[in-house]
Amino acid sequence: MNRYKVTFYPDNKVVEVVEGTTILSAAISCGVYINSPCSGDGVCGKCKVMVIDEDGKGRLSLACTSRIHQDFRVDVPLESRLELDPEIKNAAFESQEAEFKSVDSSGLGFKHDPLSKKIYLDLQSLDTGETLSDLDRLCCAVSKASGISPLQANLFNIRYLGELLRSCGWKVTVTLAKKNNGYEIILIEPQDNSANNFGLSFDIGTTTISGQLINLNKGVILGSRIAYNSQAIFGADVITRIIYSGKEGGLEKLHNLVSVTINQMIKELVEGCRVSLNDLTSIVCSGNTTMIHLLLKINPAYIRIDPYLPVANSIPPLRASEAGININPRGLLYCVPGVASYVGGDITAGILSSRLYKMKDLSLLIDIGTNGEVALGNEEFIVASAASAGPAFEGSGLTCGMRALTGAIESIKIKPDDFSVSYSVIGNVKACGICGSGYISLLSGMLSSGIIDKSGKITNTANKRLRASDSGCEFIVAFGAETNTGEDIVITEADIENLKRAKAAVYSALSVLIRHMNFKIEDIRNIFIAGGFGTSLDIDSAVRIGLLPDLERKRFSFIGNSALAGARDVLLSSQAHDETEEIARKVTYFELSNDSAYMDEYMAALFFPHTDLSRFPSFKS
Amino acid sequence: MNRYKVTFYPDNKVVEVVEGTTILSAAISCGVYINSPCSGDGVCGKCKVMVIDEDGKGRLSLACTSRIHQDFRVDVPLESRLELDPEIKNAAFESQEAEFKSVDSSGLGFKHDPLSKKIYLDLQSLDTGETLSDLDRLCCAVSKASGISPLQANLFNIRYLGELLRSCGWKVTVTLAKKNNGYEIILIEPQDNSANNFGLSFDIGTTTISGQLINLNKGVILGSRIAYNSQAIFGADVITRIIYSGKEGGLEKLHNLVSVTINQMIKELVEGCRVSLNDLTSIVCSGNTTMIHLLLKINPAYIRIDPYLPVANSIPPLRASEAGININPRGLLYCVPGVASYVGGDITAGILSSRLYKMKDLSLLIDIGTNGEVALGNEEFIVASAASAGPAFEGSGLTCGMRALTGAIESIKIKPDDFSVSYSVIGNVKACGICGSGYISLLSGMLSSGIIDKSGKITNTANKRLRASDSGCEFIVAFGAETNTGEDIVITEADIENLKRAKAAVYSALSVLIRHMNFKIEDIRNIFIAGGFGTSLDIDSAVRIGLLPDLERKRFSFIGNSALAGARDVLLSSQAHDETEEIARKVTYFELSNDSAYMDEYMAALFFPHTDLSRFPSFKS
Repeated sequence: MNRYKVTFYPDNKVVEVVEGTTILSAAISCGVYINSPCSGDGVCGKCKVMVIDEDGKGRLSLACTSRIHQDFRVDVPLESRLELDPEIKNAAFESQEAEFKSVDSSGLGFKHDPLSKKIYLDLQSLDTGETLSDLDRLCCAVSKASGISPLQANLFNIRYLGELLRSCGWKVTVTLAKKNNGYEIILIEPQDNSANNFGLSFDIGTTTISGQLINLNKGVILGSRIAYNSQAIFGADVITRIIYSGKEGGLEKLHNLVSVTINQMIKELVEGCRVSLNDLTSIVCSGNTTMIHLLLKINPAYIRIDPYLPVANSIPPLRASEAGININPRGLLYCVPGVASYVGGDITAGILSSRLYKMKDLSLLIDIGTNGEVALGNEEFIVASAASAGPAFEGSGLTCGMRALTGAIESIKIKPDDFSVSYSVIGNVKACGICGSGYISLLSGMLSSGIIDKSGKITNTANKRLRASDSGCEFIVAFGAETNTGEDIVITEADIENLKRAKAAVYSALSVLIRHMNFKIEDIRNIFIAGGFGTSLDIDSAVRIGLLPDLERKRFSFIGNSALAGARDVLLSSQAHDETEEIARKVTYFELSNDSAYMDEYMAALFFPHTDLSRFPSFKS
Repeated sequence: MNRYKVTFYPDNKVVEVVEGTTILSAAISCGVYINSPCSGDGVCGKCKVMVIDEDGKGRLSLACTSRIHQDFRVDVPLESRLELDPEIKNAAFESQEAEFKSVDSSGLGFKHDPLSKKIYLDLQSLDTGETLSDLDRLCCAVSKASGISPLQANLFNIRYLGELLRSCGWKVTVTLAKKNNGYEIILIEPQDNSANNFGLSFDIGTTTISGQLINLNKGVILGSRIAYNSQAIFGADVITRIIYSGKEGGLEKLHNLVSVTINQMIKELVEGCRVSLNDLTSIVCSGNTTMIHLLLKINPAYIRIDPYLPVANSIPPLRASEAGININPRGLLYCVPGVASYVGGDITAGILSSRLYKMKDLSLLIDIGTNGEVALGNEEFIVASAASAGPAFEGSGLTCGMRALTGAIESIKIKPDDFSVSYSVIGNVKACGICGSGYISLLSGMLSSGIIDKSGKITNTANKRLRASDSGCEFIVAFGAETNTGEDIVITEADIENLKRAKAAVYSALSVLIRHMNFKIEDIRNIFIAGGFGTSLDIDSAVRIGLLPDLERKRFSFIGNSALAGARDVLLSSQAHDETEEIARKVTYFELSNDSAYMDEYMAALFFPHTDLSRFPSFKS
């Protein structure tokens, strides 16, 4: 069989494949990640690439269906790429670091007591008053220095202990890590290495993976990375991933993709911060239940089969290497415990990080992602639900949708008189598409200016920006002349319907949950909004379209990626670690589909902002 | 290089080796174990084999120095073999089983609560009142059934949990094993396998390895095996082994030899009892500190370097597979904790099994082996010492010495008038040599009949059984005409000197230890004698030669292999397991060589029975 060479731009990566291989497979095999939310079924049209043959002729093709029959070059355009440019990475994280500090100054902080500790010991000078074995001497010294006893040990370290102690003059650094309601000696190193005590906190999202490298002794973030979860090649949401994991080799492949991505991020973090991989001895991961199953190569199939039970919500600490994560081979991986199949460790971490579980006042946490999770409670109780919002607010499944990357329109204003549009683009470049926060302000503007009615239908067509299309009427946000692709950027009635369903799912979830607990929406004193919106979400617009309830604006606070912040809290504090277990036990999962009111509430929310306008007094016109 | 075929008899094992290989190496490579206490240096002469060439001509050769230059057959005679015949195995163990029962009826028994438990659960019928993850459901059911909570789990089992539970209708058997101050779920099996709960207890002696297969649910011994520790090829005592382990590949080789032997014994045990290897989920090993280091592939070098400290006395439970032991791959290995470099877990097990640590009266445990360990104490204190007795009482290093196997003279009577000899041979066959108990009765008889004086010198030579030899005078116990080899079986003055030193080491150790603690020998109310003597040791003879103190005979009790019995107690009782830890902490090691009185006492004991005859009133003549 013939073999052909394919070069991917702008990565400049070359791969040789057998004739007939799809471009998508070739890309995966050389580490180029192309967006492919429909799992390569050829239906979503998101994996468009420019194929340039030997004569220099280009043609637009779908990477998932085009097969290779000659040498050629493939240009992967920005909107088809599963990568973020460095500028965005930094921008995204500056705000998170700032926010981390503000959480720390809340007065509800945790005791600094990292999950892994390094203790330097001079065993020669230790006067034990009796002759002890090497191991007893070591444990005795550790207990004296740390107050921790008894200690768990493992054969691996014991085997090398005799030589190690004598070769370094009985001066060693011991790393302890929390395990089995105690501490395990996971590492014994020669000489004083106690200053080099590093760990990682990660949030493994369905779409995005965020990670931070932390100096555990100082409690300081040394570096941050964000990357797409390259599992997205095989589907945009957890359900598609679960289905794919049931195919032959699927679970293995999804597991490998996430661990490869994490390892690449770790590599960049340690290189960027000049830290040795061996000095990383703990990693805390939060993520939804499906992501954690895939990370650990646990079959997630039962999550989507009645009665929708995961194999495990709480996973005991394990060697990171068991999950294929490259830190010190003896280092431990901790997964923040989840509550149920659709309320995972990311929500536990969010509850921890927001301190919702310590609030005296009734509080609400809304995590808007592919799943919209809602947690309601205070120091006395917490109940949580999840709604299938779909990926619309992440820019997926919409005609010109994209994630909050360079080139995304993130904010839009419409003049009511002539429907003229002004917008801002992330990175100040020519627009490629519209991200979630852009859609929210767009919908809000279209409502205010009367382009659409409460049902989302386009009512006025007498404007150059309005025209008919295959998907009903559409509104032109940006004309081809001003965009990066040269094509118009539009929102169709089908897109509006899609967004309306997503916002209805989130709003009706919180609404039913609050009512189920016999509260009124007005009773909520604090609303924590977490998710990929970052700092660009306009609350007023979000309330205007009926995504968020119409409450005093000062009750809202953005907490950014609370799943990542919670993982970091756990990494840095044994107390926080223990409290996640308490939170996970304390939270009651409420299944919305079991509640007869949910469908009614959802139907009522399929309007902008809602059928019941009395709930949105700010916009009663 | 030419290759030759060698056939070993009576094993009928064939191996092809390159020209120049020694017979000993060839034997090792095909699993034939030849006695070689001098580590193959060609000095001990214990590895004599009969080499029969293609013409049928035979010649006696040393296996360690004879090299192979043609095809031939090797007959390994009984006295050179590192194996016991089945008859002896059974005989040795019948007595131990009987003894086990008597210990159990002592009123000081342990609660039956094995280290690994199997619990059958029907999870479908479990009404938890809420939706739980598979793992939580399992743990909840285990806790309800066993009262144990929280439970440790591992990723290995979690990964298969979802499929397993659903494929077997939620009916599973969970195996719990004691670990880290709690219990770990080590195994989850489909359906009800709770009846098949088996474990192993082993004593890993320097010379002999004993093992038993136990039904953990019933607390019954199903089978017993005894085998030579094939490490003996590389030296008879722990010091030689430690030295060998320092050679390149030495530690690896010694580790492999002991694990291969244990695995072979396990294989025979499970086949004999029709038990599946997978149903073995725990093994408890006792052994001296060096043996445990070698079993776990921990470098024992520091045991013989001042200040004589082992790497570890107490080893946490570990997967048996980490030590190369073939039971269920998730099964755990427990090592009975030791006290010091020369007072190991075998003595802890002996103290446990004898219940010395529960005695109100002052008691003494003497374990006579290659090392002679002595423990003195009661419920309030225990102090222990070790003396380098040497392997004489195991029949090693003596002209006609052999272990207590078929063909060994185990008891001897001498007529004082004509020095005529009557003796009994193990297995009622022609005599091959003399074992430890045989030497004790022989020395006692030679003393009574005046053949030797108090110093061990032969005083009377006017008898056909007495003659001069290269090693001074010798006494002929059996003439060649009546022996298996056709050669005379003798004891030389050098042998007597050797035995005298061994008994002096043991006696002076117990004597100094008792004096060091400000007691008198008469204060000892119970004397437990453990070791390879088995049931054939005559106490009166042992006192006569000054090996044991001259106390009322009813204070003595034989407890056989107390290290094995203690390991079995631990296997069957979590309480006994915990008590071994207490014992190991409670026992104070007393180093004899630090005591100025030891050398004096040793010199004084270099007489039969002793220079101070007032200590042996029974034999004041």
